[in-house]
Amino acid sequence: MFKRLFEIDPWKIKTTQLDVENKRLQESLTSIGNGFMGMRGNFEEGYSGDSHQGTYIAGVWFPDKTRVGWWKNGYPDYFGKVINATNFIGVDVRINGQVIDLGTIKHRDFYLELDMKTGILNRHYTVELKDVDAQIRFERFVSVATQELSLVKVEVEVLKGQGKVELSPNLDGNVTNEDSNYEEVFWLEKNHQLGEFPAVTMETIENPFGTPRFSVTTAMKNVSSTTEVNQEESAKFVSETYTYELNEGQTARLEKYVAVVTSRDVAEADQLSKAEQLTAEAVETGWEALKEAHSAGWLKRWEKADVVIKGDDEAQQGMRFNIFQLFSTYYGEDARLNVGPKGFTGEKYGGATYWDTEAYIVPMYLSVAGKEVSEQLLKYRHQQLPGAFHNAKQQGLKGALYPMVTFTGVECHNEWEITFEEIHRNGAIAHAIFNYTSYTGDETYLIDEGIDVLVGISRFWEDRIHYSERKGQYMIHGVTGPNEYENNVNNNWYTNTIATWVLRYTLESLTKITTEKRAALGITGTETAKWQDIIDKMYFPTDDERGIFVQHDTFLDKDLQPVSSLSKEDLPLNQNWSWDKVLRSPFIKQADVLQGLYFLNHEYTTEEKQRNFDFYEPMTVHESSLSACVHSILAAELGMEEKAVELYARTARLDLDNYNNDTEDGLHITSMSGGWLSLVHGFAGMRTLDGQLSFSPFTPKDWQGYSFKITYQGHLLQVTVDHEEVRLVVLQGEPLAVKLFGEKVIVADEHVVKVK
Amino acid sequence: MFKRLFEIDPWKIKTTQLDVENKRLQESLTSIGNGFMGMRGNFEEGYSGDSHQGTYIAGVWFPDKTRVGWWKNGYPDYFGKVINATNFIGVDVRINGQVIDLGTIKHRDFYLELDMKTGILNRHYTVELKDVDAQIRFERFVSVATQELSLVKVEVEVLKGQGKVELSPNLDGNVTNEDSNYEEVFWLEKNHQLGEFPAVTMETIENPFGTPRFSVTTAMKNVSSTTEVNQEESAKFVSETYTYELNEGQTARLEKYVAVVTSRDVAEADQLSKAEQLTAEAVETGWEALKEAHSAGWLKRWEKADVVIKGDDEAQQGMRFNIFQLFSTYYGEDARLNVGPKGFTGEKYGGATYWDTEAYIVPMYLSVAGKEVSEQLLKYRHQQLPGAFHNAKQQGLKGALYPMVTFTGVECHNEWEITFEEIHRNGAIAHAIFNYTSYTGDETYLIDEGIDVLVGISRFWEDRIHYSERKGQYMIHGVTGPNEYENNVNNNWYTNTIATWVLRYTLESLTKITTEKRAALGITGTETAKWQDIIDKMYFPTDDERGIFVQHDTFLDKDLQPVSSLSKEDLPLNQNWSWDKVLRSPFIKQADVLQGLYFLNHEYTTEEKQRNFDFYEPMTVHESSLSACVHSILAAELGMEEKAVELYARTARLDLDNYNNDTEDGLHITSMSGGWLSLVHGFAGMRTLDGQLSFSPFTPKDWQGYSFKITYQGHLLQVTVDHEEVRLVVLQGEPLAVKLFGEKVIVADEHVVKVK
Repeated sequence: MFKRLFEIDPWKIKTTQLDVENKRLQESLTSIGNGFMGMRGNFEEGYSGDSHQGTYIAGVWFPDKTRVGWWKNGYPDYFGKVINATNFIGVDVRINGQVIDLGTIKHRDFYLELDMKTGILNRHYTVELKDVDAQIRFERFVSVATQELSLVKVEVEVLKGQGKVELSPNLDGNVTNEDSNYEEVFWLEKNHQLGEFPAVTMETIENPFGTPRFSVTTAMKNVSSTTEVNQEESAKFVSETYTYELNEGQTARLEKYVAVVTSRDVAEADQLSKAEQLTAEAVETGWEALKEAHSAGWLKRWEKADVVIKGDDEAQQGMRFNIFQLFSTYYGEDARLNVGPKGFTGEKYGGATYWDTEAYIVPMYLSVAGKEVSEQLLKYRHQQLPGAFHNAKQQGLKGALYPMVTFTGVECHNEWEITFEEIHRNGAIAHAIFNYTSYTGDETYLIDEGIDVLVGISRFWEDRIHYSERKGQYMIHGVTGPNEYENNVNNNWYTNTIATWVLRYTLESLTKITTEKRAALGITGTETAKWQDIIDKMYFPTDDERGIFVQHDTFLDKDLQPVSSLSKEDLPLNQNWSWDKVLRSPFIKQADVLQGLYFLNHEYTTEEKQRNFDFYEPMTVHESSLSACVHSILAAELGMEEKAVELYARTARLDLDNYNNDTEDGLHITSMSGGWLSLVHGFAGMRTLDGQLSFSPFTPKDWQGYSFKITYQGHLLQVTVDHEEVRLVVLQGEPLAVKLFGEKVIVADEHVVKVK
Repeated sequence: MFKRLFEIDPWKIKTTQLDVENKRLQESLTSIGNGFMGMRGNFEEGYSGDSHQGTYIAGVWFPDKTRVGWWKNGYPDYFGKVINATNFIGVDVRINGQVIDLGTIKHRDFYLELDMKTGILNRHYTVELKDVDAQIRFERFVSVATQELSLVKVEVEVLKGQGKVELSPNLDGNVTNEDSNYEEVFWLEKNHQLGEFPAVTMETIENPFGTPRFSVTTAMKNVSSTTEVNQEESAKFVSETYTYELNEGQTARLEKYVAVVTSRDVAEADQLSKAEQLTAEAVETGWEALKEAHSAGWLKRWEKADVVIKGDDEAQQGMRFNIFQLFSTYYGEDARLNVGPKGFTGEKYGGATYWDTEAYIVPMYLSVAGKEVSEQLLKYRHQQLPGAFHNAKQQGLKGALYPMVTFTGVECHNEWEITFEEIHRNGAIAHAIFNYTSYTGDETYLIDEGIDVLVGISRFWEDRIHYSERKGQYMIHGVTGPNEYENNVNNNWYTNTIATWVLRYTLESLTKITTEKRAALGITGTETAKWQDIIDKMYFPTDDERGIFVQHDTFLDKDLQPVSSLSKEDLPLNQNWSWDKVLRSPFIKQADVLQGLYFLNHEYTTEEKQRNFDFYEPMTVHESSLSACVHSILAAELGMEEKAVELYARTARLDLDNYNNDTEDGLHITSMSGGWLSLVHGFAGMRTLDGQLSFSPFTPKDWQGYSFKITYQGHLLQVTVDHEEVRLVVLQGEPLAVKLFGEKVIVADEHVVKVK
């Protein structure tokens, strides 16, 4: 089922094979980014074989007119798309007039390496031409020190014979999205120039939806070992050609300094001068210093976030790959951005924000990157409240409905069973506020801004929940729970639970705000009384005989079978079964009831967790990249170590081993926290409820041990676990009270507890 | 809410207004057809204003590649589309060089008339040009005597002044479908010719789905009062121009004889000669004789089918309009055809066959057109069994699943909640066999062919139904009932009921077939035992307190409200509410539980019908054109005469008064039987169970009376009802035993019963 293109290495993604069959997959896995921009692992010199060329700039998107088979009232007008931007890595290579293209040319000694420690991509190979053998080397990075900078170095060394080498660095705005709904080109050229700083300024085409247009200026300056240079231009395209006459042993060298400036930060009129300035400064600073600053940036991130796994290099590589790609996508510098589902690695799914951020990303960023990063993610949702009000109104409802997919807060996904019904997403938005506040111990955000979000969401629930006369209880009909393999069910336990919890948390939080804030929010006694009534009389489907919470009203009427009853040909269900069969089956895509037990972990007993886990996990196919980690964490909590490790394995190398057979479209960015969560919340049993940090670690039997760091309320704490002992070290900050295996300990510098 | 463009007249659709704002609606309502082909009420001379030009040929279609927002496994590859064919009615008119176009030209005395008695469309108006006033007259019909023939006559009479009149009859293959998924043109030209028989041969473009391509040859011969003629040609287009120099009082005359021959009947190589032959014969026969034969055909149809309503011309007109348009679409000549949802009046919805045919069309055709017509419709489904097997397989299921929309039997609709879930349609297919057999008293079809269909459907149900361990009963999860305002519900009472009924009817029918047939079908004891077990242990949701059948498992948990609680702005729900709100609401689009009480009318007590009607009808918004008639019939049976009449009114003039505000797209052909069924099965209370014809008529209080004829087991019976008496007359055939108001009577020539 899995496909591994790269060698196992603790810090590197490397291979000596150009895999023509899996070129797109190779590109996805060698993507790099710096939060501001990034690109797939495309080749600088171009490639004529099957490939997906993709360069993306954070927050630059296009509203692609909705395409459906059959329109439903309430559908959004457009699907916001991450758009492929000016390709600025290009450096065409010609030797003795022959274009170097690995799609057609004979070559040897191919080597491709992404160094995760420093965020630098290297590649080289040797071509054998009629009169000359030459080694061609590329180095590339997108600076985490100066976000607008992208740098490429090319070297061509003549190994045998002699020849004319031409290197043509270029900027190419002739790009399209493979997934454009109506085969539109999303960009038009505003300007291009040659001269000292060849540049292209592109603008997104007009749209009828009133969403902003973006302009992007890309400028370059090239530093070369030759002075023979020509310039060329065409529509949306500028290029320089450097010519080198080389003898055996000589090397042509070119450094391409690119600056990308967008209308998100700089008005179009000023973009060119800004880009020229950045490019000039970069050239002046020089390659080595820029590379040094960039690498230092990555090292600093790793200092806080690295996880060391001893005795399992596969796991080690997977863990670091996920952290690397997450940080490449988002490191919290810009509150207008979020963690897109494909980051800068592909264009599938569109949108910049899913509920994944709150459910899976915030819990990790809280620990690995300092609270300001998580706060940015929370503020992002606060800014988008108007969009959430709009979405609720589209459904004829009050309050705030956060979107499934969005750039602006306005929903842009268009499946009724998801867009209109997967409303539990609202719960995750509220839960992230709870999680942040509980983790940081800081109520400022909750009181100043979070409460606006909570009240908006509570008002939505109030209107969306109905009272069943027959049952004398409140209900939520017509939802899709986290298990997207069922649609339009009634009283999804998870949705009812998280909705009720939000109402409770909102009422509780209202006691903490000022009278002015309360008045500004227009809170009435009638409305809080209604919320309380819903809390008191909410219906939760349960089964007393089994002692479980029931996924939804009629789940137990299904033909209940474990996944083990399926044959190999059935899996994955989403590729082998008709949608109808999937829907009627008892098989669960991802944690549903168990998602509730994970989120509201402290509210349920171990016995409740055990019974529900035992009932639901065997029916779960984990066909969402978000599923395994939740199960792994619960399994670990329940002492099912083998199960926990098995499930960890499904999330930690999901993309590296292409488990879901779709990584060629781009990486599963938002589920990349899964491995980290499984290890830290699962294996190490970390919990942070009510300002009490606690651990209850074990070491997987095939590992020697592991070590990770977390940032917690001003402390940097290192946790090292092996089969003999657990070692806690406060690397920064005051001594810290921690619960370890249920015992309170004060960790000053170091605290060691023997295991068994 | 309604819009009426045409005057009230018992036999005519006529107006003196060219309604520019509602041109498309006017075109829909003046469509004509002869089962083989037809067209919207477009103008021969062309029209530059908003218009939908549409010419359609039965059985000539194109598989338009499926377009969806998000693909679901099991979706069909294409949506079969009725395609706009060569426009052959065109006759351009120029007077003194000026193009006559009612979109731009000044005119008076406009008159447009469709005579339903004879199926002839007439139109005339007077134009006032600079030097000349002229009256322009058009007459058009599509022959029901010779199906390939379409005829147009144009006359231009100079009323004042003098001028040069040019008439240019043409054939134009440059046509497109407004609803093409990918803006493709579906036709390419194979050939065109001038000469004695100007003609165009078109062929549908290639498709990747292996469905047949069609070629269509259209030839014309024009007979004119002038001999001055020129010919012109361009791509897909041929034209002649006849020039007349006229003085005041003189008239230019042109008769255009068109023959349409398709590859469905004639190989492409022979089409041209066939079309030339037909055209030549038509010219020889001459206008008046052709018109005579055509009108006689219509009169013959009316003799069997006319319904006379006394004292309500609106109702009279609506009734005849519906019968006229139904017969224009289908009169059973060709077993490869069916009753398309828009007939020849538009291209929306695509497909040639919906379950509407069995549910609403067969019950009427059984009475108005002789059993051979209904048998054709049944044979059509039998021929398409392989497609139904394919559809079930697409869902991973055994047996036969008849499609929602099809040309070939293979499903081509693509909404999962409909395509995969609205499987009750299978029940209607089986019920039509029962209905036909019961009405005709002839079991031949059942035994020879119908049984194949029944067994296929039963095998589908067996696989689709599952056993709920918890309840110890069989269930059907994940369906959409006839009420399409709920999707993916469990145990829809109607679906469970009709599925169980099919199994019962199949087992019963199996006792009538030969051992050879049984063996050929591969019937096993295990399988019939399983069917019996399902019949014995099927779960039917009921509510003992209310004494009703429950629409589906959780329907009664809804916030139950009557339609009367809605405000005017809410209606129609499908235009004013988000889909989500519609789904969660208790409001019902069309008969659901009540559809079962209608189909299996004899299996339920009056009390059961009354309780269910009283519960469901108040929540029903009747936003399907198929809803009102079922309710009207049940209301009539329950003695709720006012309700019956109110609901009748919603169906009888649905298109003429544009109740659903969408008739501009074409007529609602498959619901056109609604008025007839309401009157005959409702007001007259006709039932035909077990070879016993019965009536229990009443006369709506605002009517003087009504009269209709039915064909029944070799008899032609006339039923005349007024407030005083019911008069039964056997017009053809032997004396007939009839139950009237529960009393058995033998009707020889005439039988009269006083009412009260």
